[in-house]
Amino acid sequence: EDNEGGTVLNDLLADLARVNNSRDRASKLFQWLIHPIPAKAFFRDTWEKKPILIRHQNPDYYKGLFSTAEFDRILREDDVQYGVNLDVTSYTNGKRETHNPPGRALPFTVWDFYSSGCSLRMLNPQAFSSTVWNFLAILQEQFGSMAGANVYLTPPGTQGFAPHYDDIEAFVVQLEGKKHWRVYNPRSEDEVLPVNSSRNFSQSEIGKPMLEVVLEAGDLLYFPRGFIHQGDCLPDAHSLHITVSSYQKNSWGDLLAKLVPAALGVAMEEDVEYRQGLPMDYLTYMGVQNSDKEDPRRERFLSRMGGLIQKLAGYAPVDAAVDEKAKEFLHDCLPPALSPEEQASSVQGASTRWGNGRPLNVAARICSQTRVQLIRSGCARLCSDGEVIQLFYSTDNSRVYHKEGLKSFEIKLECADAIEFLIHSYPKFVTVQSVPCDSTEEKIALAEMLFEKGIIRTAEPL
Amino acid sequence: EDNEGGTVLNDLLADLARVNNSRDRASKLFQWLIHPIPAKAFFRDTWEKKPILIRHQNPDYYKGLFSTAEFDRILREDDVQYGVNLDVTSYTNGKRETHNPPGRALPFTVWDFYSSGCSLRMLNPQAFSSTVWNFLAILQEQFGSMAGANVYLTPPGTQGFAPHYDDIEAFVVQLEGKKHWRVYNPRSEDEVLPVNSSRNFSQSEIGKPMLEVVLEAGDLLYFPRGFIHQGDCLPDAHSLHITVSSYQKNSWGDLLAKLVPAALGVAMEEDVEYRQGLPMDYLTYMGVQNSDKEDPRRERFLSRMGGLIQKLAGYAPVDAAVDEKAKEFLHDCLPPALSPEEQASSVQGASTRWGNGRPLNVAARICSQTRVQLIRSGCARLCSDGEVIQLFYSTDNSRVYHKEGLKSFEIKLECADAIEFLIHSYPKFVTVQSVPCDSTEEKIALAEMLFEKGIIRTAEPL
Amino acid sequence: EDNEGGTVLNDLLADLARVNNSRDRASKLFQWLIHPIPAKAFFRDTWEKKPILIRHQNPDYYKGLFSTAEFDRILREDDVQYGVNLDVTSYTNGKRETHNPPGRALPFTVWDFYSSGCSLRMLNPQAFSSTVWNFLAILQEQFGSMAGANVYLTPPGTQGFAPHYDDIEAFVVQLEGKKHWRVYNPRSEDEVLPVNSSRNFSQSEIGKPMLEVVLEAGDLLYFPRGFIHQGDCLPDAHSLHITVSSYQKNSWGDLLAKLVPAALGVAMEEDVEYRQGLPMDYLTYMGVQNSDKEDPRRERFLSRMGGLIQKLAGYAPVDAAVDEKAKEFLHDCLPPALSPEEQASSVQGASTRWGNGRPLNVAARICSQTRVQLIRSGCARLCSDGEVIQLFYSTDNSRVYHKEGLKSFEIKLECADAIEFLIHSYPKFVTVQSVPCDSTEEKIALAEMLFEKGIIRTAEPL
Amino acid sequence: EDNEGGTVLNDLLADLARVNNSRDRASKLFQWLIHPIPAKAFFRDTWEKKPILIRHQNPDYYKGLFSTAEFDRILREDDVQYGVNLDVTSYTNGKRETHNPPGRALPFTVWDFYSSGCSLRMLNPQAFSSTVWNFLAILQEQFGSMAGANVYLTPPGTQGFAPHYDDIEAFVVQLEGKKHWRVYNPRSEDEVLPVNSSRNFSQSEIGKPMLEVVLEAGDLLYFPRGFIHQGDCLPDAHSLHITVSSYQKNSWGDLLAKLVPAALGVAMEEDVEYRQGLPMDYLTYMGVQNSDKEDPRRERFLSRMGGLIQKLAGYAPVDAAVDEKAKEFLHDCLPPALSPEEQASSVQGASTRWGNGRPLNVAARICSQTRVQLIRSGCARLCSDGEVIQLFYSTDNSRVYHKEGLKSFEIKLECADAIEFLIHSYPKFVTVQSVPCDSTEEKIALAEMLFEKGIIRTAEPL
Repeated sequence: EDNEGGTVLNDLLADLARVNNSRDRASKLFQWLIHPIPAKAFFRDTWEKKPILIRHQNPDYYKGLFSTAEFDRILREDDVQYGVNLDVTSYTNGKRETHNPPGRALPFTVWDFYSSGCSLRMLNPQAFSSTVWNFLAILQEQFGSMAGANVYLTPPGTQGFAPHYDDIEAFVVQLEGKKHWRVYNPRSEDEVLPVNSSRNFSQSEIGKPMLEVVLEAGDLLYFPRGFIHQGDCLPDAHSLHITVSSYQKNSWGDLLAKLVPAALGVAMEEDVEYRQGLPMDYLTYMGVQNSDKEDPRRERFLSRMGGLIQKLAGYAPVDAAVDEKAKEFLHDCLPPALSPEEQASSVQGASTRWGNGRPLNVAARICSQTRVQLIRSGCARLCSDGEVIQLFYSTDNSRVYHKEGLKSFEIKLECADAIEFLIHSYPKFVTVQSVPCDSTEEKIALAEMLFEKGIIRTAEPL
Repeated sequence: EDNEGGTVLNDLLADLARVNNSRDRASKLFQWLIHPIPAKAFFRDTWEKKPILIRHQNPDYYKGLFSTAEFDRILREDDVQYGVNLDVTSYTNGKRETHNPPGRALPFTVWDFYSSGCSLRMLNPQAFSSTVWNFLAILQEQFGSMAGANVYLTPPGTQGFAPHYDDIEAFVVQLEGKKHWRVYNPRSEDEVLPVNSSRNFSQSEIGKPMLEVVLEAGDLLYFPRGFIHQGDCLPDAHSLHITVSSYQKNSWGDLLAKLVPAALGVAMEEDVEYRQGLPMDYLTYMGVQNSDKEDPRRERFLSRMGGLIQKLAGYAPVDAAVDEKAKEFLHDCLPPALSPEEQASSVQGASTRWGNGRPLNVAARICSQTRVQLIRSGCARLCSDGEVIQLFYSTDNSRVYHKEGLKSFEIKLECADAIEFLIHSYPKFVTVQSVPCDSTEEKIALAEMLFEKGIIRTAEPL
Repeated sequence: EDNEGGTVLNDLLADLARVNNSRDRASKLFQWLIHPIPAKAFFRDTWEKKPILIRHQNPDYYKGLFSTAEFDRILREDDVQYGVNLDVTSYTNGKRETHNPPGRALPFTVWDFYSSGCSLRMLNPQAFSSTVWNFLAILQEQFGSMAGANVYLTPPGTQGFAPHYDDIEAFVVQLEGKKHWRVYNPRSEDEVLPVNSSRNFSQSEIGKPMLEVVLEAGDLLYFPRGFIHQGDCLPDAHSLHITVSSYQKNSWGDLLAKLVPAALGVAMEEDVEYRQGLPMDYLTYMGVQNSDKEDPRRERFLSRMGGLIQKLAGYAPVDAAVDEKAKEFLHDCLPPALSPEEQASSVQGASTRWGNGRPLNVAARICSQTRVQLIRSGCARLCSDGEVIQLFYSTDNSRVYHKEGLKSFEIKLECADAIEFLIHSYPKFVTVQSVPCDSTEEKIALAEMLFEKGIIRTAEPL
Repeated sequence: EDNEGGTVLNDLLADLARVNNSRDRASKLFQWLIHPIPAKAFFRDTWEKKPILIRHQNPDYYKGLFSTAEFDRILREDDVQYGVNLDVTSYTNGKRETHNPPGRALPFTVWDFYSSGCSLRMLNPQAFSSTVWNFLAILQEQFGSMAGANVYLTPPGTQGFAPHYDDIEAFVVQLEGKKHWRVYNPRSEDEVLPVNSSRNFSQSEIGKPMLEVVLEAGDLLYFPRGFIHQGDCLPDAHSLHITVSSYQKNSWGDLLAKLVPAALGVAMEEDVEYRQGLPMDYLTYMGVQNSDKEDPRRERFLSRMGGLIQKLAGYAPVDAAVDEKAKEFLHDCLPPALSPEEQASSVQGASTRWGNGRPLNVAARICSQTRVQLIRSGCARLCSDGEVIQLFYSTDNSRVYHKEGLKSFEIKLECADAIEFLIHSYPKFVTVQSVPCDSTEEKIALAEMLFEKGIIRTAEPL
């Protein structure tokens, strides 16, 4: 992959690679994305609240993130499949169509579709572009929620999609050309921050836009989930943009969906009030067919029910439910995109290799003086279901979404503190010796195991 | 089935058949079961609280409910399958075993097992005995929860089961011979009114009995779920008892298990607070690995979570959740056991028949002056999922548990009031004319449909 | 069930119960069915060849087999379900319709359908009528293939079914009233003895009938599978007939479908010619795209292929394949309908019973002098898969088709001769002592086990 | 992938790329593999018959096919997963073990296993090495059956696998170091050309080797399926070899398994003898329990059965069954590895690309004068199930076995001749104009479609 060096973005990414703390990298990258608005102000005033347009007056501001040349290279070199990695769409005279043939998408057919007025949507550019991978892998630590992306290439004078809203926070990054965007308020209170994406709307259903703008290369348009939007190309220019997304199913309610059944389980075990029988006659005054009845027993029943729901709060295993969310996030995560220095000091770039008819540098080994660090702040997480302690980690994930299952291994009780120590020490490097295990052998064995799975790296190459 | 007439029970059942309201039948029958304790006192002081022994000093008090002669008749005439309808068990020297061969249980092999000291448990006597069916079908209306039964026949000097507790309220009705019972308190607070039955205990695990008694024919022993129990036969007499059970999975918590996810669904739809994103950094201070951290953000997070749980009470669709429980109950229900009068005035006993080479009495038809009544108080229930209104009913159920699926049909919106009128009119007979439908044709069509499904009967045979 | 005694059929069935060999019973009953045609002539000239009409000039000839009064009794007393046990149909103006509502079929609704001109088809009368059960259970031994039956009741002046052909040999037994039948030759060679039943035909597709007749009570109409037929009622009389069927999927080809893959398996194991590789270039001259090529390699390939197919005959495990068919037949079989004498001398009627507070006659036991006989000629079959020997049997089957799985148990190698001896001794009674087992204990244990499963009976009641 | 040029193999592959007919390429490459033995003699005397050792006295003879350096590069650059792409094994003191950890196989851990004496088996080197892919993709056309490969790397002085036989023809190509091999005759006639691979044998089960040899770099060892083998390293040298395999489940019997049930289906449709009923009494004299009976009916039954089997040959749809095998082969096939010239004249290398803000060379199009050729002799196949004609093709396959489903599309009846013409014209280039379709538009449309799927290429780049 030939990402041209020397761009604003490439210089930034090179700088970030030297920042020791991946959470700092994430906030710096995000700040750059929405520059010049301070992130703090953005999250206070704009995030999940309203659209915003940021003009950089610099067509090269986002240069190097992605390009149509890169798109073409990917079609040529990688196994891009229609319908899986690439959608061919059109929206003409109010009619939205998909034109995917079966099989591999090669330039010969893709550019033919484009030339006849179809839009192209690449569904997971991070699997094909190292820069997009790196970009999103950093950003996911900012959001604490999966960062995804689609790339959209639209021919001049066309529109590829009907007006609709999505279930994610969207950052539209204009990379080439320009695009005319119209954004509309949610149609009702119920569609503010909606749980699911909408169907395609007709123009008559969506009213007047609350924002209308021509996005030019280097500009950014953000809008929260629920804001209806549509973009079309001017007659004189194609458009290439990448939409970075996050916060899909990451609401308080999504956490409650894990927490509330667990809370009820705990309450049933610990509190006999939840195990007591229902009133014998409740079916005669409760239920839809009795809902209009005036009956003091209804009041009493509803009141007791309400009390039991409220009391659930006291039984809610919040940390365990958060860990369920965290495990989903770890499964969704992109694997870390390592800098050359990180590579060299981790299992991925270890110097062990074949040479002269035998393996070389096999002896390179962690010892008690080796200093180690988690390879990313949130790349591993210690969870417990009450019986077994497990370490879940994202370093073996694929760049293809959910291609691998969620990875984990069991941690012996006596090693849990050691793992917690390593996690909480981040971003500090600590010696293997300082890890709280019973013996030096155990310390080294634990460190080797974490190193082999790519979870920790060493301060110096082994 | 040759149930001897003239017993206390048969006279009672004949009397009950003349009681117009099935809920009254149910409470009268239950009162007779626990006589001389008043039901009100029983439910206040004993139900779900503690065991009680009731001695009737009359070996014939429960006569006619079931007998070993009936057991033998059933084996001979019905298709009783080992492992499905009948278990052969033993408990000797602390070891509990099951001895079921495959295939049909015929007297030749069953009595051979019994003679060699095995206990026999008939699992659903209501499928084979009309009296047990009638008895339980009435009682289920008292409990508002499925009433089940097992029959236990134990040879002299033996025990068939290890000490254990069950997940149901148990009424042990001694029918023949006598049995030595020991009942023990729940072993801990957690096992008071437990959700699930226990494993078999060893004698050393259960301590001293809180009640020890020899039950004789005509006696009753009640104990709540969670009370450990074991019974063994004296050397000089066999024992036959039937255990009537109810209130399995019928607690407040069981209802909450249906209600709470529905409440969250409503809250997600109606209240944007539930749809708002989680804090971006919550994974760094919440979760098991952070649970020991002092961090004000943890307090804030827990507090908001708690508030959202408590606020769920305001969104809880209690009537809809009760209807879910009600539907389960309707599916569990025994079909009504009709008296000859009921039979004659319902579809089951309609006079239409074949004779002289053609159908006779086909003309017998419901008209607007026909007076009708639900055949049982709770045999049908009007429910709505917000879109479709359905009438669920138990009259087509089988005497075999869940042999049929839950039956229902859709009710047009304009007929819902008519159905509700019929349900709420119970036990009064009302004319078809008085039912609130648009036209006389519709009234008659609705009544015919309900009559054909056995849901209503007429005041006089058609 | 109130089958009137004293009819021709009931007298015959009583006589047959005294015939010791169930195969003789079967041939006598079949001879009576087709009387006065000799069975030998029938099977030589008519069976699988052409329709035949047999007039008995006696409306009571088949009386007692089934009646509309019995139909009505069954609706009243048994759980007949629409769509499962009963179909309501009509064929009017060339349109065939089914009118089954859901749920139980009670006289009130059934006779209403009939009165409005619908035909009624009862699908498995043998489950409800003891006489039909007995009749078919005997006949199945004649056919060596499942004997089934449907009952058809048609109102005057109507037709219930469109013209079609079936996949079974059909014996139409007219029980009441009369019916006008038209039978048509198979439409082509391909539809002679067809594998599957046909769709409904229109009148224009079937040509002229080869047989047209009014069937009257006491008459019989036979036609082979593939012969198209339709029957309609005259304006002045209803019709009740029962169609007895057999030989569904019982052709040489059906046996070959089991045999041929097994033969190939044996050939692959035993003959290296079948394991040798295909010619490397065969894909270039074989296959549909090459089928028009003149190529000597095609001839050679086809010739070798043909040789290998023909050689399969030498590897065909015919007896094992027949046993697969036999096992299917055993699974399809009705259980034997026992005469009172058979009942009394088998496990079903053993005298063991409960009385006076304890089991009576438990001591009645098989001893070495007890004389035993298979309860039916073909009720059990010894099969082997090369490793395990199993005895398959039909005595635990249900009167409801395939309600029970195929029953079997493993036979120890040293008992196989004993079982074979018992099977081949039929219909002779033999003493337990004479059975070739190692010890008297084993002989008695084996006999007891077969007795308990209902496979053998004793010469005298135990 | 850095395959060094200038080796014998690379020069050969470059030469082969200039051979116009892929079948010729295949036979030339195979001839080179077994040089100096003439292929004709090899297939006549050795193939499927006996092992053979070929010494090239040139350690570089197979150089460039694969190397341990390539192995190391693949571990570093590709996603090699333990258990999926790589096995770590050992065979010590008669005990065979597998040591795969979960997750990705990186040099750090892989070379550690190797250093501690474990063998490494790479399961599908063709997915990682372009040369192996090219090599096997050519050879599969020689065999007409999938050509697969495993690579084995063994440390000095160790053995990685227990003695066993395989179900494929094996060509062991020694690439580096040397290995001591022992080959044993099949243990019995039944294990000659076996259908399935064996379990691991102990040394005592396999007797004396029929061939014992030290294979050195540049040597080849061939042995047929069924020949037991084991290889171990001398103390002074590691060993790297690749085993090329083919002819798995490619025997006459495998084809018969598709053909024989189809033949029976045809016979059942066309020949009434197969649809005639079985003799009514056959269950009484056939079957295992009757197999010792002397009964003339057995003879007659067996004779008729045998006749029907033999007659099946006349109904066998051989070409259709061959097409079923052919479709399996097309699914198993590696996609063609294109030479630069082929690339440039096919859809994969078409000049259409993005440049200067728009697609370039979109106009390049097939016209009636364009000369086209199938890209490989066997890359597409026309099949018919009697109703629909389909073209199956392998050009969209993945280098990963069965990662893609078998690809096909329907061919209109009027285009079938055109496709057949193109297939049978191979290797000649033909003009689009010369293809037998109704109109020039159709000819071009068909050619474009085949070109877009990679099935045909043009004589000159478009």
